[in-house]
Amino acid sequence: VSDLNDLIIRYREFTRERDWEQFHDPKSLILALVGEVGELAELFQWQPQGQEDLERNDPELLRRASEELSDILLYVLRLADVMDIALSDAANAKLTAAEERFPIQEFTGRAPDKVRGS
Amino acid sequence: VSDLNDLIIRYREFTRERDWEQFHDPKSLILALVGEVGELAELFQWQPQGQEDLERNDPELLRRASEELSDILLYVLRLADVMDIALSDAANAKLTAAEERFPIQEFTGRAPDKVRGS
Amino acid sequence: VSDLNDLIIRYREFTRERDWEQFHDPKSLILALVGEVGELAELFQWQPQGQEDLERNDPELLRRASEELSDILLYVLRLADVMDIALSDAANAKLTAAEERFPIQEFTGRAPDKVRGS
Amino acid sequence: VSDLNDLIIRYREFTRERDWEQFHDPKSLILALVGEVGELAELFQWQPQGQEDLERNDPELLRRASEELSDILLYVLRLADVMDIALSDAANAKLTAAEERFPIQEFTGRAPDKVRGS
Repeated sequence: VSDLNDLIIRYREFTRERDWEQFHDPKSLILALVGEVGELAELFQWQPQGQEDLERNDPELLRRASEELSDILLYVLRLADVMDIALSDAANAKLTAAEERFPIQEFTGRAPDKVRGS
Repeated sequence: VSDLNDLIIRYREFTRERDWEQFHDPKSLILALVGEVGELAELFQWQPQGQEDLERNDPELLRRASEELSDILLYVLRLADVMDIALSDAANAKLTAAEERFPIQEFTGRAPDKVRGS
Repeated sequence: VSDLNDLIIRYREFTRERDWEQFHDPKSLILALVGEVGELAELFQWQPQGQEDLERNDPELLRRASEELSDILLYVLRLADVMDIALSDAANAKLTAAEERFPIQEFTGRAPDKVRGS
Repeated sequence: VSDLNDLIIRYREFTRERDWEQFHDPKSLILALVGEVGELAELFQWQPQGQEDLERNDPELLRRASEELSDILLYVLRLADVMDIALSDAANAKLTAAEERFPIQEFTGRAPDKVRGS
């Protein structure tokens, strides 16, 4: 059983029943994904930093974040589906690559430096 | 078995081993997600429309899209983890809501109108 | 006279009058920018490709795009302001660099290849 | 004199000389904009909060942020150009609307609540 796959198949069926495959080319789906990422960002933009405990106790924030993360996930799965990408395998391979790229000894407590590259 | 959950647990462990939880507040993770969405968008920005068949036969494009979709998925799962959101359930609930919001008879072959609202 | 600078100063004053400088750190402003980019993307996600003439004759689409582009511009200017970046000069320098990086003879009618790099 | 307009005209000319108008439909330009926003987000994703003074003294971070903000600005201007939008006027109108929507007395020191709406 794979819940990623169950979601992919369910969304594929949802799309087919409405004859919406015609709208689901990669560029359009990426724009839809960007729209949902924007809604997630908006929820957090003015949240004060260093008060993540408060966020974890704000049920309305969590409810809305849960909805936006779901929308993002669904578009990611739909994109993988239309491009015929085995996403679960690919994500596991990415984690394996990250484990090698960021050795524990070298990166403990230190984030990759995105400004200078690392 | 849940492959979504397996990925969440594996990524959580990866983070803990490097003492990176301190970097993984929601705002920082959303910015990291945006970075990966940007890399996906870049792959497709100049792809000609109406030639999605060509895209499906471009192994290098698919390989890179697969990597970016994986990165996006992993940050989505990490965000759900740090906010303690049951993402698989939430995404299924979203699909159920979409089935009701977009009745087949009314929306067959017609995309929601995002400009005028619908 | 510089209309970019006029907008920067006007937005700075708007922020100061409301004591909002405390919210305008770079990470928060980038998330706000992402929110507005998401709203722009949403307007266009299901627009059919190859029908840009129709878009140019859709006053409601143009009105809303104009609003979202304005919001994006304002956050870009605010980010430049809080980081003390001379944006007009920097953008002109970028165009000069692009002219050298993409020689006319080599790139006429050919977009940069973002998949394979170029 | 308008430096916004100077940049628009210069970028338009750059595009025309390379016969790149064919690539600059709104959906493609928005994806390109998203790519640049992603690069900006990546620069700041792991920056510690509350240390914006350090950021303002990091010349390499500022140099790269300046480049990404320029790229974003240029795509925003190009989008306004292909949609024939008077962006400087629109942005000023947006600021006027914001002044009315967020009265000083009511919003001093208080950010709009994006979670519950306000």
